[in-house]
Amino acid sequence: MKRMLFKHRSIRKFRSNPIPEELLRECLEAATRASTCGNMQLYSLVVTRDRTLREQLAPCHFNQPMVVEAPCVVTVCVDIHRFSMWCSQREAAPAYDNFVWFLNGATDALLAAQNFCVQAEIHGLGICYLGTTLYTAGEIARILTLPQGVIPLTTIVVGYPDESPELTDRLPLEAVVHYEKYTDYTAAEIDELWAEKEASEQTTRLLEENGLPNLAQIFTLRRYVREDNLAISRSYFTLLKERGFFNQ
Amino acid sequence: MKRMLFKHRSIRKFRSNPIPEELLRECLEAATRASTCGNMQLYSLVVTRDRTLREQLAPCHFNQPMVVEAPCVVTVCVDIHRFSMWCSQREAAPAYDNFVWFLNGATDALLAAQNFCVQAEIHGLGICYLGTTLYTAGEIARILTLPQGVIPLTTIVVGYPDESPELTDRLPLEAVVHYEKYTDYTAAEIDELWAEKEASEQTTRLLEENGLPNLAQIFTLRRYVREDNLAISRSYFTLLKERGFFNQ
Repeated sequence: MKRMLFKHRSIRKFRSNPIPEELLRECLEAATRASTCGNMQLYSLVVTRDRTLREQLAPCHFNQPMVVEAPCVVTVCVDIHRFSMWCSQREAAPAYDNFVWFLNGATDALLAAQNFCVQAEIHGLGICYLGTTLYTAGEIARILTLPQGVIPLTTIVVGYPDESPELTDRLPLEAVVHYEKYTDYTAAEIDELWAEKEASEQTTRLLEENGLPNLAQIFTLRRYVREDNLAISRSYFTLLKERGFFNQ
Repeated sequence: MKRMLFKHRSIRKFRSNPIPEELLRECLEAATRASTCGNMQLYSLVVTRDRTLREQLAPCHFNQPMVVEAPCVVTVCVDIHRFSMWCSQREAAPAYDNFVWFLNGATDALLAAQNFCVQAEIHGLGICYLGTTLYTAGEIARILTLPQGVIPLTTIVVGYPDESPELTDRLPLEAVVHYEKYTDYTAAEIDELWAEKEASEQTTRLLEENGLPNLAQIFTLRRYVREDNLAISRSYFTLLKERGFFNQ
């Protein structure tokens, strides 16, 4: 169990069995035990098990089959609405409609999300985070009837795994850890840190499939293209303002 | 061990013993096993053990004694710099200098941070997140010599606990979880969800100490005042632009 976190794989194929009610509740409780800014719990977890609703959400996640196949989809939201309502009902003027409280809420939300995932995996469930949430957050907000002051940040699909993928590679630890201060990389160090990843069979296969000379270009020319990055950045920032997180 | 996450308390008093090198490394490795957007690992963990440097960081965290007393301070940063360097060295034009990649990097960073904390607690270490990081991120960036494309998001102090505080209360689970869609709260429901917290001894004590009629006003008039919220929001957003996360 001490090596639990080292066994994490994202799961993208699920059996259709539902998650027992008590187990789901335990994972949600574990989420709420994570650290939270000022103990304010500025997030909401929207747990969608209804298949029709998951079918509505699927296009927001580029119709990845797991959104419908997994029994449960958890949309992780920053929520300043609930706390602000409480303040307003107590003659206390809420002042959370600004960027730092989006960030505080996002921190709360993501620590809770990760606790949820760890607890799920302890019990043999599999999870996958859906980064597509940021691309289509406005439409997700509409489907899940999120009020002002609530914005989707990420999504977790969860259920019993129907695959057992290999552990994914990571950069060597010294790539992401700096001791004392940040030590900038030399060009040679960058080459060295990526060497194993670039030499892998998986990379060779990707390069063949994509007809490209190196792995970096798969990221910049195929996976995350500049014009998409800019469009998503603008649309999420617009949504942030519309939803009341940028009155400053 | 299955109930590990349910035992989390933030620790603010630490013994001075250092963390064994191997154990620290295991916690950092656990951090890197968290899910990461496109397996890009868009974060850096700056591990500061040097006391002089921690003394320099302390004012950024309002001189909370734990920053100097704990043997180790981990500044958790969003990092698009390393990945962009790699792309540039491969004739691939990086396009991560925009808001969505700040958010993707923040997500990566916070999932990694929470894994770090869980692994630390498994081994009897204690942790505390420092939200002050957002207030003084520019100064922290200067002290830790963060290059362009790297921005502090949160900080973790970690070490062996010298206190064993009670478990902190949380709102009832139904406050933060919504089934299927978001169901907005009635005023009566808000009252009910906060009832236990408002009736606690701790709240009674806080109201006396602050000479205020209710807990919500402690948040709005004492802890997080509107003008501070706005000033921090503006300064962090300015930093985001300066550090190259908002070219869009």
